[in-house]
Amino acid sequence: VPRRSATQVASARADTLTAAAELASVVGLEGLTIGGLASRLRMSKSGLVGRFGSKEGLQLATLDLAADIFRRTVYQPASTAPHGLARLNAICDAWVAYLGDPPLPGGCFLTTAVVEFDARRGPVHDAVKKVMQRWLTLLEREASTAIENGELPADASPQDVAFTLNALAVGANCDYQLNRDPDTLRRARRAMATALSG
Amino acid sequence: VPRRSATQVASARADTLTAAAELASVVGLEGLTIGGLASRLRMSKSGLVGRFGSKEGLQLATLDLAADIFRRTVYQPASTAPHGLARLNAICDAWVAYLGDPPLPGGCFLTTAVVEFDARRGPVHDAVKKVMQRWLTLLEREASTAIENGELPADASPQDVAFTLNALAVGANCDYQLNRDPDTLRRARRAMATALSG
Repeated sequence: VPRRSATQVASARADTLTAAAELASVVGLEGLTIGGLASRLRMSKSGLVGRFGSKEGLQLATLDLAADIFRRTVYQPASTAPHGLARLNAICDAWVAYLGDPPLPGGCFLTTAVVEFDARRGPVHDAVKKVMQRWLTLLEREASTAIENGELPADASPQDVAFTLNALAVGANCDYQLNRDPDTLRRARRAMATALSG
Repeated sequence: VPRRSATQVASARADTLTAAAELASVVGLEGLTIGGLASRLRMSKSGLVGRFGSKEGLQLATLDLAADIFRRTVYQPASTAPHGLARLNAICDAWVAYLGDPPLPGGCFLTTAVVEFDARRGPVHDAVKKVMQRWLTLLEREASTAIENGELPADASPQDVAFTLNALAVGANCDYQLNRDPDTLRRARRAMATALSG
């Protein structure tokens, strides 16, 4: 058997992680097992262990991919808008669109991961916390710029703005996943607009 | 062995359900198994099957109890406030206090149940949906009264108000469970106040 090129190895790894993220978005990161993924991919368990080391290694790599999908879908389309209020509005547009048509079948992967790992201790909990903190910090920075620009009131709190936008998205995800009512998305966007009107 | 009285049977059932709700608030309703609960309670599996019929019966009864705990902790303390804005504010006070000191160890049971069952079909999904709908309808009714009373703008939407308050609570629960930062609770209450200021 010829040795596979580095590109082939990387691409096989990416395909495996995509399948892992799709599975975990429905059964949860904790429900994601080496055995479950192996049988879905018709791969050997030892092949997966070789690739990710352990269930925890697989969970961490899957979370990384999901965070990356979130960034590509929600942050990247907004990143051409000027910093401050315009960028926050562009993020909210992309975010609500993402919630209505999530790239992974179980809805927002990160919300599910937060609810699953908030009370568990360990490396996956820490990684989930870090992903969320990074996102809230990014929102806070844009809110600070909006305040400096005079686009939000001088006494507005960047942390409050970031918290509120994120809570509205999390709440909309739960509501939309449960009821599939497009009004939920319109409501979330309107509430975000109110939070951004000062 | 003397037959147990109806009161004894009811009380044993209540104790079992309390243990089930405590367990499920950490491992999830889907993680709640007849076997897991039996070993925790040092009971026989057949005794639990006799009491609840099946895992699904146990899940439904546990969800009922959790909804009841929510009503007693969040709705009941507020139910002496006059209908409309005063009652909505009293609900928000009790709600944020509940999120900061949840009666079940894993945080808001209903949020976890929504995230767990949004994509699964079946009687537990339907029951979760019904509990959430009942709560949102109650909030909408109070918002309608607040609009009639002139305490909220005439063009406010009761559905928008209910959605926003619920989203802020869901988002605060996720954030607080993950980070245990009391600022989260203050932020949530402030954002609720903003949503209720029209």
